[in-house]
Amino acid sequence: MYQWMKDLFPICRSITGNGVRETLQYIKNLIPDLTIYEIPSGTKAFDWTVPDEWNISDAFVIDENGRKIIDFKNHNLCVVGYSEPVDTIMKFAQLDQHLHSLPDQPNAIPYVTSYYKRYWGFCVTEKQRQVLRQYPNKKFHVKIDATLKSGHLSYGELIIPGKIDKEILLSSYICHPSMANNELSGPVVTTALAQWVLKNNDRRFTYRIVFVPETIGAVVYLSRYWEEMKKKTIAGFVLNCLGDEGDYSYIASRLENTLSDRILLHTLKFKTDKFKTYSFLERGSDERQYCSPGIDLPICTLCRSKPGEFKEYHTSLDDLEFVSPKGLYDSYRVVRECLKLMEENCNYRIKVLCEPQLGKRDLYPNLSIKEGGGQNIKNMMNFIAYADGNHDLIEIAEKINVYAGELLPIAARLLQVDLLEKS
Amino acid sequence: MYQWMKDLFPICRSITGNGVRETLQYIKNLIPDLTIYEIPSGTKAFDWTVPDEWNISDAFVIDENGRKIIDFKNHNLCVVGYSEPVDTIMKFAQLDQHLHSLPDQPNAIPYVTSYYKRYWGFCVTEKQRQVLRQYPNKKFHVKIDATLKSGHLSYGELIIPGKIDKEILLSSYICHPSMANNELSGPVVTTALAQWVLKNNDRRFTYRIVFVPETIGAVVYLSRYWEEMKKKTIAGFVLNCLGDEGDYSYIASRLENTLSDRILLHTLKFKTDKFKTYSFLERGSDERQYCSPGIDLPICTLCRSKPGEFKEYHTSLDDLEFVSPKGLYDSYRVVRECLKLMEENCNYRIKVLCEPQLGKRDLYPNLSIKEGGGQNIKNMMNFIAYADGNHDLIEIAEKINVYAGELLPIAARLLQVDLLEKS
Amino acid sequence: MYQWMKDLFPICRSITGNGVRETLQYIKNLIPDLTIYEIPSGTKAFDWTVPDEWNISDAFVIDENGRKIIDFKNHNLCVVGYSEPVDTIMKFAQLDQHLHSLPDQPNAIPYVTSYYKRYWGFCVTEKQRQVLRQYPNKKFHVKIDATLKSGHLSYGELIIPGKIDKEILLSSYICHPSMANNELSGPVVTTALAQWVLKNNDRRFTYRIVFVPETIGAVVYLSRYWEEMKKKTIAGFVLNCLGDEGDYSYIASRLENTLSDRILLHTLKFKTDKFKTYSFLERGSDERQYCSPGIDLPICTLCRSKPGEFKEYHTSLDDLEFVSPKGLYDSYRVVRECLKLMEENCNYRIKVLCEPQLGKRDLYPNLSIKEGGGQNIKNMMNFIAYADGNHDLIEIAEKINVYAGELLPIAARLLQVDLLEKS
Repeated sequence: MYQWMKDLFPICRSITGNGVRETLQYIKNLIPDLTIYEIPSGTKAFDWTVPDEWNISDAFVIDENGRKIIDFKNHNLCVVGYSEPVDTIMKFAQLDQHLHSLPDQPNAIPYVTSYYKRYWGFCVTEKQRQVLRQYPNKKFHVKIDATLKSGHLSYGELIIPGKIDKEILLSSYICHPSMANNELSGPVVTTALAQWVLKNNDRRFTYRIVFVPETIGAVVYLSRYWEEMKKKTIAGFVLNCLGDEGDYSYIASRLENTLSDRILLHTLKFKTDKFKTYSFLERGSDERQYCSPGIDLPICTLCRSKPGEFKEYHTSLDDLEFVSPKGLYDSYRVVRECLKLMEENCNYRIKVLCEPQLGKRDLYPNLSIKEGGGQNIKNMMNFIAYADGNHDLIEIAEKINVYAGELLPIAARLLQVDLLEKS
Repeated sequence: MYQWMKDLFPICRSITGNGVRETLQYIKNLIPDLTIYEIPSGTKAFDWTVPDEWNISDAFVIDENGRKIIDFKNHNLCVVGYSEPVDTIMKFAQLDQHLHSLPDQPNAIPYVTSYYKRYWGFCVTEKQRQVLRQYPNKKFHVKIDATLKSGHLSYGELIIPGKIDKEILLSSYICHPSMANNELSGPVVTTALAQWVLKNNDRRFTYRIVFVPETIGAVVYLSRYWEEMKKKTIAGFVLNCLGDEGDYSYIASRLENTLSDRILLHTLKFKTDKFKTYSFLERGSDERQYCSPGIDLPICTLCRSKPGEFKEYHTSLDDLEFVSPKGLYDSYRVVRECLKLMEENCNYRIKVLCEPQLGKRDLYPNLSIKEGGGQNIKNMMNFIAYADGNHDLIEIAEKINVYAGELLPIAARLLQVDLLEKS
Repeated sequence: MYQWMKDLFPICRSITGNGVRETLQYIKNLIPDLTIYEIPSGTKAFDWTVPDEWNISDAFVIDENGRKIIDFKNHNLCVVGYSEPVDTIMKFAQLDQHLHSLPDQPNAIPYVTSYYKRYWGFCVTEKQRQVLRQYPNKKFHVKIDATLKSGHLSYGELIIPGKIDKEILLSSYICHPSMANNELSGPVVTTALAQWVLKNNDRRFTYRIVFVPETIGAVVYLSRYWEEMKKKTIAGFVLNCLGDEGDYSYIASRLENTLSDRILLHTLKFKTDKFKTYSFLERGSDERQYCSPGIDLPICTLCRSKPGEFKEYHTSLDDLEFVSPKGLYDSYRVVRECLKLMEENCNYRIKVLCEPQLGKRDLYPNLSIKEGGGQNIKNMMNFIAYADGNHDLIEIAEKINVYAGELLPIAARLLQVDLLEKS
């Protein structure tokens, strides 16, 4: 996954344009069944309209000595996203009106966009800006070689059919230029999960995996499929900021306590050292759309360090050093664990009244001496006690305070000896 | 309001009689639409019967030297409420059987009544009583010039019609003689609130404002109107002990968590420094009737220092010094805040699916740079996220931990741009 | 009760056999209406089958010098329960394979059984075993004079009819050999309770009191009556380990918060100094069957020191010294208190709207001076406030934080003056 990130990092992505296409094509090479859709500018989507397509080939600021003091080719964050073209000469005092920097983080280039209002601008470090400000009358050649015209918004969708048409949704976004954790880690982990799902031929559920530009892409996607998704979706996750090694962050769905919330919380509790719980008030990404009133999909969000909670967020400091192969893989494993539990989750019902006689099936020690049996037998007895058809696997596991994954071999054994049924 | 208290303080009120009439007439001068009702003695009201009317013109105890040692004209608390007439000469030892004082509060004259059993008595300070006890054989002329005969129980009612017939109830009591906090502060604050309601021509709800003698008055009032009130009342407050500057006290309704409870708690939480929460087990006033089983009005109670929790309670120490203009006005403001929220409270529903595009309406910054927007935009986004038609204003405000009053301009703006509807 | 324990202690009980019969006969002498049932070996009961009947007349291990080093006549725990017959000579090394001891408790003979797999064995103290191990080649005459053949499983049942056919279940077990707390205390306390129920001719409920061998007995019993019991049982307790003076232990029912749970918790809270609460995960006795999925009786369990939580458990140290007359009697009293409350428990409804006028019935002081009345009147007023027909006695008592037993005279008084009805 880290190699994929390295390949994708230099591409200049935005909510539309060739950077998105190139990124989706790269993902399609890894999961060939991905379908790439192109939605024309001007298309209505609920309260939104697909904007003009933006493409940029170069941008710079050159001083009187011909020195490029700002160069898009060095870092694509240095141009405000969706800048309109400009090619002129101006004094620094004038140019300064179009510069953006972060006084609190003097060495960071900020990530700035202006999708829905015509504007142009450059982003620089606060340090560089302070140096330039000493000569307000110095003149500069300012050029942004960009196009902003009717085109398309691109997104990718992969439907992996399962035995039933109930769906699990995975969604990540592919609209951020050269930043690593937020956001290449999300699409990269999602791609790896898609590969894992494709390999699992026993899957029960259908998987809907989408790579969209944030906000407008999710809105457009939902405007096309929300009724179908509302009927079919049983759970799912928005995946972003999954490349660093910080504590996990769980952001609750708006409805709270959905299957997604329950499974993610259970997995984090039993399979990670530490995690933070955020309410839906702390949301930030496409869960804003998936969980919006009337859409109400049972979706929650997993991150490592949460957007807005790490200082590198939305700056040039969120680079390939900030993420790691281990960070990516551990995050991947947590989601994979959740998907495994979802596949197995159901209500279990014990088929006999009273406790079954486990001893005659060699599932219980025949010689009784004080607290016989050990933890595994205790788990089996407790599993049986709550397998009343009214609790699903996760509820039973929470009730008896054991990781649901450890109950699966127990359930399998009881199904095998015909003491248990799925209901 | 403090001036009103000063005017009303000297009047000798009881559960019936001319003191009540005089008090109601004073209030009627301030809110002319007040209707004064007279209910004949002997009228049945649920388990109760309206008692004979009590009026007193004078009372005293004179020693052998012609010195008035107890004088009703000095303080009306010195006669036990509803005392029957007496005019005789007796030794102190005998008189002492009819004296009441508080050993724990040697300088306070207690407030004592005997509404439903014929009796006469005087209240004195413990200090005075101890002095008198030195001469048990001293003789005194004891006189209470009172009448106790068939008459009427008086109460006042003001119905202020609104756009709809759903009602808000305000109730206070007008049966206490010369004590200030308990109880002139309640009727006085209620009168000021009635004036405010009358000025607010936009009011949605109908207001039922009642001034009754405590217990018997509320019982009589309910016996006449409870079925209508049960149908119409959506919220309301019993108002008493609102003149001092102590912490606010909230006494929950019997049913708990009614609209009244939710709005009062929300307001106290966001608009006062400190308040105490009491369960219905700590009730003391007419909420006992309004919330009784089968009546079950959604009414809770607001006080400053709660009856029984301050030592001046039901003694001559609860005087005009114990209350203040500031205490009265602050209390008035809290209730007014609650009434404002009630008027605006409803379920809100956002009219578009997914988040609306606020930028195009200049409600959201067009330039995105890190955590843009600030608290106000965050509140708007959070309001939208929970405006799903299933939460009322107070629930949304509690959910997003913002005072409901701050959400009202946000709701107004969203209604204006047709993104929101009341449901 | 302690005398009964002394009489019953020496009998060698198991899940079948004459020891059980003798025990049931002893109980029948105390409560003559007890019916003793005999269920043939081979009878199916849900997932179980009644095993062969086991009887033992003697057992010993004799060394070469004719010295009995293990003697069933000294302590019946020294033979593994359900041992098959054996009569042979063997070296200690071989015998050692059939010995059981507790390394952690060197002076205790453990309690070991092998009901469902043919086996024989002896139980000794770890101390004795270590001495014997010094001479592995020493020879011993090993004899168990037992029979294990088709016979019957015995249990006792006492149905005490009440005014209605709704039932309260008391269940204890009579399958343990010479151990005192676990388990003679249970049957002995249950017997005393049965005598008390029989004496109470005013009882409303029918009582089903069962003495069964643990597990197999409860399974057999349920297989015969569960459908009837499911319809009729409103509450009940499994009673065991009630003879010591340790803190009370409450083990919740599987469904939690049933009437049994509520009444037992309420009684423990108000009538004992200290108690521990265990979830159903900590269950151990026949509640495992009564609360199993599909059976779902509203039954919880009361113990003093809980099985598995005291070191004497299931060893020879659980002897007559470990229990006491006081321990037994206090436990008896707690359950009796619960049964009394069950008999009286119902929903109460006050018959008048608003507060009743208690003064005219001499239930309230006629002279009002500050906080009059005291705790008893406060309890009465609070009882009235919650007697709305929707709360039962226990709920009202919990609400107003007063022991339900103290509310009974209040309810009786209000019923007498026709202010209250049961609903």
